[in-house]
Formats: sequence, C-alpha cells, structure tokens
Amino acid sequence: MTYELYYWPGIQGRGEFVRLALEDAGARYRDVGREDRTALTRFLDDRKVTHPPFAPPFLKSGKLVVAQTANILLYLGPREGLAPKGEAGRLWVHQLQLTLADLVLEAHDVHHPLGANFYYENQKPESLRRAADFRAERLPKFLGYFEDVLARNRAKGDYLSGRTRSYADLSLFQVVEGLRYAFPRAMARLDRDHPRIAALHDRIAARPRIKAYLASDRRIPFNEDGIFRHYPELDGD
Amino acid sequence: MTYELYYWPGIQGRGEFVRLALEDAGARYRDVGREDRTALTRFLDDRKVTHPPFAPPFLKSGKLVVAQTANILLYLGPREGLAPKGEAGRLWVHQLQLTLADLVLEAHDVHHPLGANFYYENQKPESLRRAADFRAERLPKFLGYFEDVLARNRAKGDYLSGRTRSYADLSLFQVVEGLRYAFPRAMARLDRDHPRIAALHDRIAARPRIKAYLASDRRIPFNEDGIFRHYPELDGD
Repeated sequence: MTYELYYWPGIQGRGEFVRLALEDAGARYRDVGREDRTALTRFLDDRKVTHPPFAPPFLKSGKLVVAQTANILLYLGPREGLAPKGEAGRLWVHQLQLTLADLVLEAHDVHHPLGANFYYENQKPESLRRAADFRAERLPKFLGYFEDVLARNRAKGDYLSGRTRSYADLSLFQVVEGLRYAFPRAMARLDRDHPRIAALHDRIAARPRIKAYLASDRRIPFNEDGIFRHYPELDGD
Repeated sequence: MTYELYYWPGIQGRGEFVRLALEDAGARYRDVGREDRTALTRFLDDRKVTHPPFAPPFLKSGKLVVAQTANILLYLGPREGLAPKGEAGRLWVHQLQLTLADLVLEAHDVHHPLGANFYYENQKPESLRRAADFRAERLPKFLGYFEDVLARNRAKGDYLSGRTRSYADLSLFQVVEGLRYAFPRAMARLDRDHPRIAALHDRIAARPRIKAYLASDRRIPFNEDGIFRHYPELDGD
C-alpha cells in the first residue's frame, strides 16, 4: 500500500514530522501536495468527506484519512515499527510527541506572537520581546525536559523511550535541526548544555534512510515561510 | 479503581477537560491538586519517575502516569466508554480533540500573545490586536469547522462523531462555556451562526452527571487566572 501525504508544498512545516517517520520506516508514500497543489485544496473543499481535516497535514491510508500531526504519527507508530506495541509505551511516546508539538508551536509564535494572520514585518517589536523570553526561559525549559527524559532512559537505551528509536526521536531530531537553523547563536550555547539531545540528533542523522533522505531533493530546505525561520534579530547577541 | 488527577488548584484550566470526562463517565477519581498542592510539585520533582510529565494535568491510573490533556482522554476513551472502540473512530475523535486543543491555546494566547511569562497587564496593546483577529478570523474559522463536522454527522447522530457523545463533545461543551465567559458579546453573535454547536452545548449541559457536577463545588468558577478570561476590552464592541 502507498500512503498519500497531503501538505503545503514549499515548506517543511508540520508535514516534515510525518515525512521523517515515513522515510525512516522505509514506507511507500506520495507527497501529494508537492505533485499537485490543487489536490490538497480540492480535498479540503470536498463536501462528501465524512471526517474533514481542519488543516494539513493529513495522511490517506486506503480509505482512512488522518489529520493532526501527532495523530498521524500515533496511527503510523505501531503499523510501521515507529512506536512500542504496548499501551503504556504508545501513550508515553505520544505524550512526548505532544510536548514536542507544544515546543514547535512556541518556536513558531516567536515570529508570529500576534497570530498567523499578520506578517512578521507587522509584528517585529512584539517578536523581539517574545524571542528574548523564548531563548532565555521557554527553550531551556523544554530542552532541559528532553535531556532529562533521555537521562532517565539511559539504562535501557540511547533514545527517548526504550531500546529503539520511535517517531518522537525523529521529531526531536527535526526540532533540533529547526532550532539550529532559526537560532544558531542561542543553540550553539544550548547544545553544550544538552549533550544527550545533541548525541541523539547525530545518531538519527546517521541512520541510512534519514541520511539518504536529507541528501535528496525530497527534503525541502528551511526557509522563511516555514515554522523555523532565521531572522538574525530574534537570535540574540 | 480510583483515578488520581493532578492539576493546579484554583482554575479549571486544561484539567477541566479531564474532569468533565471523568464526571460524565461516572468514574471514581481524586482531584489531588485541590486536596494537597504540594503533592503535585512533589511528583514533578521526583527523580524516580520513569515517565515524567512536562506539565500538569496528569492522571495516575494504578502504576500508569499519563500526561498531556488529549493523551489522557485518548487513554480514558475506550476504557470509560468515552470514545468509539474501533481504530478509525478513535483516531477521528482524537483528531477533533487536538483541533479543540489548538483553539483552546489560541483563546489563551489572546491575553498572552507574548507568552505566559509576562503578565497580561504588560502585554495589553498586543492583546488588543490579537483579540481583534481572534474574534474576526480565527474563532469563526474554528466554530465553522465544528459546526460543519456536526452537520456532516447528522444522519448518524447529534454528536461530533457517531451516535453517542464522546470526550470531544464534552470538550466542545467546555470550549463554548469558556468562550461565552471570555467573549460574551462576540459569542452572542457567533452562537446564532452556529446553531448545531449551541444545541450540542445544551444537550451536554443537560446530561444528569454533568448537570450535577456543574452545580457542585467540584466545578471551579471561571476566573482571570485560567485559560478563558473575561477582559471586556478584548471582547470588541
């Protein structure tokens, strides 16, 4: 079976968390939004869809349509060997994913504190204030949390949960990639304080399928339309 | 078995979505944070916890500790008859819950656009701008979506999904309650345009266990420390 991923073309965005999971699992998928942008809006406007998504990304798997990034990963987890089979393990990995989603949203809101309907250029002073708080307080709090989760799991393995990588590890890799792109100065300091996260990032980057994916043109470069944007003025001194 | 809910005392907050689910299911639970605030921070600081929550609410069920509101409801769903048993139905209800969580966060960020670390009083002009966009664009978009979901399900039942209420219906009830408290003027208009949501709200409010809960002192009144805050200046004309 071939999955169909529907997401905006031109950005990694939230779709990237799904792409990394599908790529690392070696699953067959079509990136529909990149092939045919109208297919995405056509589907969102289709009155016959029983379970309409509020927004991309969504994944078609046969007749099933699943939306919300964390929910898509919840679905793919046991099916593609990306999460533990048992209930406690599945809930724990999902909990980590939802916490990563909170961090991703805060990283986005740094450049859009007044909401996505205003351009960054129209909320720059507000972004500067939010960015300072993000770098000094929120980001260290989140990174400290994930560093601690890795430390508590160290007797079992080098991952967030158990002995093998889950979709949450792939997502943490992507978050670190995005943060380093958006906040290179702040992350140079923070990386030193969070060696387990940095090591996990490198371990994921070295996985053969991830390595091949990152080198391919399926990986869209970071840019200033996505979630993680490099505006030097938001990166501090 | 008695569940233990851990959440900040004094506010409904995100804990309320869990309380409503437990109450409507007739489940036995202790609201630990209200009985003993130190129990909550003691648990968060406990180095022996394998799966530490990032933040409240979290739910103890025997040895299991589950955090992230939507994840707690995902866990309670099939166990307490609050969600469909089948995979497609479970994913759909969870997807709706995650979309409600997005709306709840945006409702919160109206009074905290620069982040939770600044007092509202120190971000009032920014709140005014974000509030105008929320009332005019974001809120109608979300409510229009849920009205549409109710319409698409009408052949099956008067709920978001299938023939019976799920935790997502209880959460939509709570969102409407909160929005009416925070934005009474805006919601008076919006309620007229979303009759299915208003009807669902009333149907949930009339459920015997919900009715008894709302009349009890277990229901904390809305206030200006919670997610939904009534600041008249943010409610428009």
